[in-house]
Amino acid sequence: MTDKLSTLCDLGELAIVERIRRRLPQGDDVLVGAGDDCAVVRATSDADHDLLLTSDAVIEGVHFDTGTPFDAVGHKAVGRVLSDIAAMGGQPGWALLNISAPADMTVGALDELYAGALALAGEHDLAVVGGDVAEAPALSVNVFATGSVPAGKAILRSGARAGDLIYVTGTLGGSRHGRHLSFEPRVAEGLLLRPFATSMIDISDGLATDLAHLLRGGNVGARIEAYDVPVSAAAAGRRPFDHAMTDGEDYELLFTIAPVSKDDFLAAWNAGTGTRCTCIGVMNDNKGIAEYVAEDGSPASMDDHGFSHFD
Amino acid sequence: MTDKLSTLCDLGELAIVERIRRRLPQGDDVLVGAGDDCAVVRATSDADHDLLLTSDAVIEGVHFDTGTPFDAVGHKAVGRVLSDIAAMGGQPGWALLNISAPADMTVGALDELYAGALALAGEHDLAVVGGDVAEAPALSVNVFATGSVPAGKAILRSGARAGDLIYVTGTLGGSRHGRHLSFEPRVAEGLLLRPFATSMIDISDGLATDLAHLLRGGNVGARIEAYDVPVSAAAAGRRPFDHAMTDGEDYELLFTIAPVSKDDFLAAWNAGTGTRCTCIGVMNDNKGIAEYVAEDGSPASMDDHGFSHFD
Repeated sequence: MTDKLSTLCDLGELAIVERIRRRLPQGDDVLVGAGDDCAVVRATSDADHDLLLTSDAVIEGVHFDTGTPFDAVGHKAVGRVLSDIAAMGGQPGWALLNISAPADMTVGALDELYAGALALAGEHDLAVVGGDVAEAPALSVNVFATGSVPAGKAILRSGARAGDLIYVTGTLGGSRHGRHLSFEPRVAEGLLLRPFATSMIDISDGLATDLAHLLRGGNVGARIEAYDVPVSAAAAGRRPFDHAMTDGEDYELLFTIAPVSKDDFLAAWNAGTGTRCTCIGVMNDNKGIAEYVAEDGSPASMDDHGFSHFD
Repeated sequence: MTDKLSTLCDLGELAIVERIRRRLPQGDDVLVGAGDDCAVVRATSDADHDLLLTSDAVIEGVHFDTGTPFDAVGHKAVGRVLSDIAAMGGQPGWALLNISAPADMTVGALDELYAGALALAGEHDLAVVGGDVAEAPALSVNVFATGSVPAGKAILRSGARAGDLIYVTGTLGGSRHGRHLSFEPRVAEGLLLRPFATSMIDISDGLATDLAHLLRGGNVGARIEAYDVPVSAAAAGRRPFDHAMTDGEDYELLFTIAPVSKDDFLAAWNAGTGTRCTCIGVMNDNKGIAEYVAEDGSPASMDDHGFSHFD
């Protein structure tokens, strides 16, 4: 008899896998879901589509604190890969969830984790088709996901050119006060940007760090109007702007638009979404250099780096 | 200055990612490898192919002991997903490696782990196109991989019918004495079996447990000639047959062949591979029941289960 307080150890691997298998959605394109050696899926029109592949981990004590509600852990784990797919202008496809958990984790906790993961996946048409559960000293969730874009249409980090306008969705900073567990990945916005953005990245490590990736990719520089950077109300403690620059885990989209596309982009954006979108600067020829300027044109100071593992 | 004894903490996340990126192979079908939000890949003929998706974890203290050579950890991590793809009769495609590692892991150790992973992946035409490195209390590697089969041709666990002959590749048992770190996934053999096998699974949890999956899938029973089960020379300690039944991690293929295909199968097998292949029994109508018989027809005793997590 399994109740919510039974542990994974009480239940045993086969029963855990069967329990998970029963709650995974099955779509027409999922020929074989969890329960065989691999999941088997069929894309309806993939001859003219490229496949996106991404993976992310959330680890107890690193990406979430011990005691975080399990549904929030599941939400964050799936949200991170969806944000990666969004940042390529991709349509989510299929995902696998690998859960590593201590043997004394309860079945109720595992159910909650899946509930959080599957709710967010379902919202964005990401079908969870399998995965793995294994014993480990601490809880971690590795999510692997696929997405698709029309052939050759993935929006890369490397497409920005001098003169392109730099935009960001939503507001930045303060994610550590809780938003890193509840963010909504910008999947619809990424799809909307597919015909317009010349480069794109999701802000996972802080605006400063992630902007540097676009500069390196495009071999360009940037001038950022610091006072235009939209700061989250949650950004408190240090100067709000420093939070916006370096906190990371905003999971907003940072992208560039060629001046010639600006009007069409804004018309499509305003017709297609209520999500905030702010122009914060422009790309230039100062290769690799990001200049942040205050309202009076003087340099704006800031912390020098965002969040990085192994620092 | 990075030397082999520098730690991941010394190097920092960006340098680690760059170091990994440089050594990943790029093929014609890999449009964007590591270094963007997602990898972008293009299958040349996927309109008439189904996509296989699989993931596995190897965790320090669970799937390998602390002190295991890092190249063996990488080999095992990639070998497990290749074995899953082999068990569907699939052609390996692309993979992502998520490594969770303590901050004091050395760069040399990370290089060794990748060397082991990439060597095996390369042997089987599995292109490693990205992944993730994150800090964690213990070392673990999650591998995600895709494969492909002609549309509708994946070999499932569920296809066995009464009368089908039961075969196993290689020899079983004794994997814990080291073979679990050095096995060769049966990818070529899986491809060879695609036109012939009615059901297939790779033996990861022991013959007894994995045979039960085929019985459940096909709603059939099995009579196994215990004395025909090929026992590895490494199986020592308990009775060799018990090892062969329950050790797990053999990563051999267990499959069924319809009697009508037997001659064609054997001809193709002997022409295509030098790998040992042994008929160990036959499927019957005793739904869900596996009967193991000794040479004189009396029941053969054995341990009652293979390896299972959370037991």
